[in-house]
Amino acid sequence: MTAPDAYPALVTDAKELAVLQSCAAVLGWDQQTYMPKGGGAFRGDQLGLLAKLCHAKATDPAFGERLAVVEASDLVRDPESVIAANVREWRHGYDRATKLPARLVEELARVTTAAQEAWVVAKGKSDFALFRPHLEKIVALKREEASALSSGGTGLRAGDALYDALLDEYEPGGTTAELRPLFASLTAELVPIIQAIGEAGKKPDESVLRREFPVDRQKWFAEGVAAAFGFDFTAGRLDTTSHPFCSAFGPGDCRLTTRYNPRFFNECFFGVLHEAGHGLYEQGLPADLFGTPCGAYCSLGVHESQSRFWENLIGRSRPFWEHVFPRLQQAFPGTLTDVTADRWHFAVNAVKPSLIRVEADEATYNLHVAIRFELELALIGGELAVADLPGAWADKYESFLGIRPATDAEGCLQDIHWSFGGFGYFPTYTLGNLHAAHYFAHMPDPTDAIRRGEFRDVLGWLRANVHTHGRRFRSGGPTRRATRTPLTAEAFSKSLTGKLGELYGV
Amino acid sequence: MTAPDAYPALVTDAKELAVLQSCAAVLGWDQQTYMPKGGGAFRGDQLGLLAKLCHAKATDPAFGERLAVVEASDLVRDPESVIAANVREWRHGYDRATKLPARLVEELARVTTAAQEAWVVAKGKSDFALFRPHLEKIVALKREEASALSSGGTGLRAGDALYDALLDEYEPGGTTAELRPLFASLTAELVPIIQAIGEAGKKPDESVLRREFPVDRQKWFAEGVAAAFGFDFTAGRLDTTSHPFCSAFGPGDCRLTTRYNPRFFNECFFGVLHEAGHGLYEQGLPADLFGTPCGAYCSLGVHESQSRFWENLIGRSRPFWEHVFPRLQQAFPGTLTDVTADRWHFAVNAVKPSLIRVEADEATYNLHVAIRFELELALIGGELAVADLPGAWADKYESFLGIRPATDAEGCLQDIHWSFGGFGYFPTYTLGNLHAAHYFAHMPDPTDAIRRGEFRDVLGWLRANVHTHGRRFRSGGPTRRATRTPLTAEAFSKSLTGKLGELYGV
Repeated sequence: MTAPDAYPALVTDAKELAVLQSCAAVLGWDQQTYMPKGGGAFRGDQLGLLAKLCHAKATDPAFGERLAVVEASDLVRDPESVIAANVREWRHGYDRATKLPARLVEELARVTTAAQEAWVVAKGKSDFALFRPHLEKIVALKREEASALSSGGTGLRAGDALYDALLDEYEPGGTTAELRPLFASLTAELVPIIQAIGEAGKKPDESVLRREFPVDRQKWFAEGVAAAFGFDFTAGRLDTTSHPFCSAFGPGDCRLTTRYNPRFFNECFFGVLHEAGHGLYEQGLPADLFGTPCGAYCSLGVHESQSRFWENLIGRSRPFWEHVFPRLQQAFPGTLTDVTADRWHFAVNAVKPSLIRVEADEATYNLHVAIRFELELALIGGELAVADLPGAWADKYESFLGIRPATDAEGCLQDIHWSFGGFGYFPTYTLGNLHAAHYFAHMPDPTDAIRRGEFRDVLGWLRANVHTHGRRFRSGGPTRRATRTPLTAEAFSKSLTGKLGELYGV
Repeated sequence: MTAPDAYPALVTDAKELAVLQSCAAVLGWDQQTYMPKGGGAFRGDQLGLLAKLCHAKATDPAFGERLAVVEASDLVRDPESVIAANVREWRHGYDRATKLPARLVEELARVTTAAQEAWVVAKGKSDFALFRPHLEKIVALKREEASALSSGGTGLRAGDALYDALLDEYEPGGTTAELRPLFASLTAELVPIIQAIGEAGKKPDESVLRREFPVDRQKWFAEGVAAAFGFDFTAGRLDTTSHPFCSAFGPGDCRLTTRYNPRFFNECFFGVLHEAGHGLYEQGLPADLFGTPCGAYCSLGVHESQSRFWENLIGRSRPFWEHVFPRLQQAFPGTLTDVTADRWHFAVNAVKPSLIRVEADEATYNLHVAIRFELELALIGGELAVADLPGAWADKYESFLGIRPATDAEGCLQDIHWSFGGFGYFPTYTLGNLHAAHYFAHMPDPTDAIRRGEFRDVLGWLRANVHTHGRRFRSGGPTRRATRTPLTAEAFSKSLTGKLGELYGV
């Protein structure tokens, strides 16, 4: 087989895998939106079969042989070419999929399935002891997985290298060495300003967010803003779920979901802006490269950067509300006549240390992530025993945010991630915030356009500098190319402390 | 390989195929209900890949080898056992799937894809000439297919044998020889009574059906009746589509769809009763046998019998409306206060010759089917040229129903079936009506229970005598077992002419 024959065959294989995965995505979306309760068990059978077929395709030895042929050829000479990038990412995925012994894959699947059920019960009863034996098994298996991935399976490696191997699943090429200084500088900036805000005399009136907002008007209004951002509703839709998400099936079909609280504006609105940000990214990926890495999202961090960009950097900005607030008043007649755009803007930027990550504000959110990053490093590095997790968790919350959880449910049992073995996932949330601010700081100043409700140029910049590249450059890559500077926490800290300093007078 | 090893392997293979087909069913349902317009092309890619994987499984030589081993063993000694029935149906499906040359399968797929597009255009312009070349190709290919299926591929066989081979796809074991006398006796009964009704002085006031029925109340009311019949909405749901259907994904998940016309009661209501009838059948199949023939519906004719049973024999009966009409009046306050249950019952049983099959009433419907059956026999038998179809169609309508279509759109272009090659499908609609009436006539008289709004015993009888058997007995089989008499048109003719005779005084 020659490389010019092998490469198109790889594209065909990869597309088939992507289409098969997208079938599972449709089933997953339906499961969360419309599936009747009684369909759960059979849906498990369907998704189980698709996962089996996907795994067989992803580890097909014929794929590995073709890959080796192309890797050894002239086709990959230019490392920034589409072909070279695809081959690089295929190798990455193929090695990850084939390096793990089948026994380990099966054991992880079995253990995490049981762990997720146990986690639901343990969280409901707020009893870490019920989850502890499951988490102990998971940590041991993830250490084994990380070792197999990072060293070819010959014994355990040092903590950071192990964590890198897990992080790499969500943030290809990301390293602990890069993350440590980012979190350190973030923490150094955020802890004092959050403290100062707590002591400030000026406070927002958050009660305006908790007036009566009829659900059908909320949907109409949020869809209107998402459409104004550029989300194409002829190639997507918005449905209701208990946990909001964005699921892109393939070119021309991207589903957003949200949830509604008729007495809390933020729940649906910022949720939709967030998911629409993910959706805009998916709608901006090159459709003709669908199924190959260059047609896929870059990393979870870059994906999250797009959601945070629209949710926070646009959606919580003053120029945005200067434009949108009068329209909001019209959309909910009589509800907000006594409120000004300034008061509203302050309310949606309220900062207050809290125990629950998913309810946290823009500033404290990253401290929640920093805590999890440090705890994950310690667990995977073998420095922290699972038995000591609740205490370590509480101590970190005390030192970072000045508050201690009273129960496990509002402490180390609050997130689902560890129960499915998702170690290395949390940092991508903060990476998203940093990438987003970095992009915002380096694009032509969009303030005036936002004030006029015009988002085309902003989206155009993101399309040209981020979306269109897919996974052609690793996550640091598009950021460096787009901004000509490496990622730091500076842009994020500067824009956030600037905004909050002005609002709170600190 | 021994038979005791081969049989469980066949079950596993068959279940995998069924689960994979059910994934396609979910995607098909989503396509009709929620998919955004832009997702159409990619949905085609997804369904195309699943079809390819299904075809590969259905024609896997390893399956054929296992099948041969079990067929030659003692496991199939009792022809009415589950194992023997499964093996019989697997052989039927495997032979159908493997007898056709790949070239023919591909050509049919290509030709019918183009034909369906051409049919939409031709119907829109009411111009048969645009569809004619496509239909000519399809008829030639279907004759070739029928020949390959019925004789192993050695030249064309006689008309009836060819048609049997096509019918067999939808009604396994059904034959033209059985259908001819059924249609002949039906036509002999129906033509004069429809004529007499046309000349009768008594007419229903159909305008009561065309009052204002708000869509949300229609949905609520129809769902209530479906639930009262026994449809389990914790294992199913009702959504909106332009063409109503029932799609059962698997145990615990059965989706119904309907459409709404706020100025016509029948559209949603009888549509939901019809689809709920299909759904009750699917919910009554033995879940533990899912994926094998004994866990699947018997035939399209038997499936249709279940929908017609609830739609017509229950839903258009006098005792049903004696119970339901006061509730209908309450559900639409003020709308029907001047109407009686008797007037309403007459209105929902209005009979009038019309040109469009899907809008036809209970009596004329089967003449629409009889016309198509005769035309299909002539086309497949080579006695009617496609070019002569519009004239032959109009002549049949004149002789059966006393009316002639003025255009092709309301003539031979009205149905989609032939454009996808669905020759042999139409007769199953009438078979459904006949089976349904045959069951009704042979079950313990449910009249009093229906009058009290109690459907449990009716459903229980259908569950025990039809649903629970799946495909264990061929379509004539469950009917004969359940009623101890072979299927005739008598029960249908008798009950329908009795009802209409009373209403119209003919």
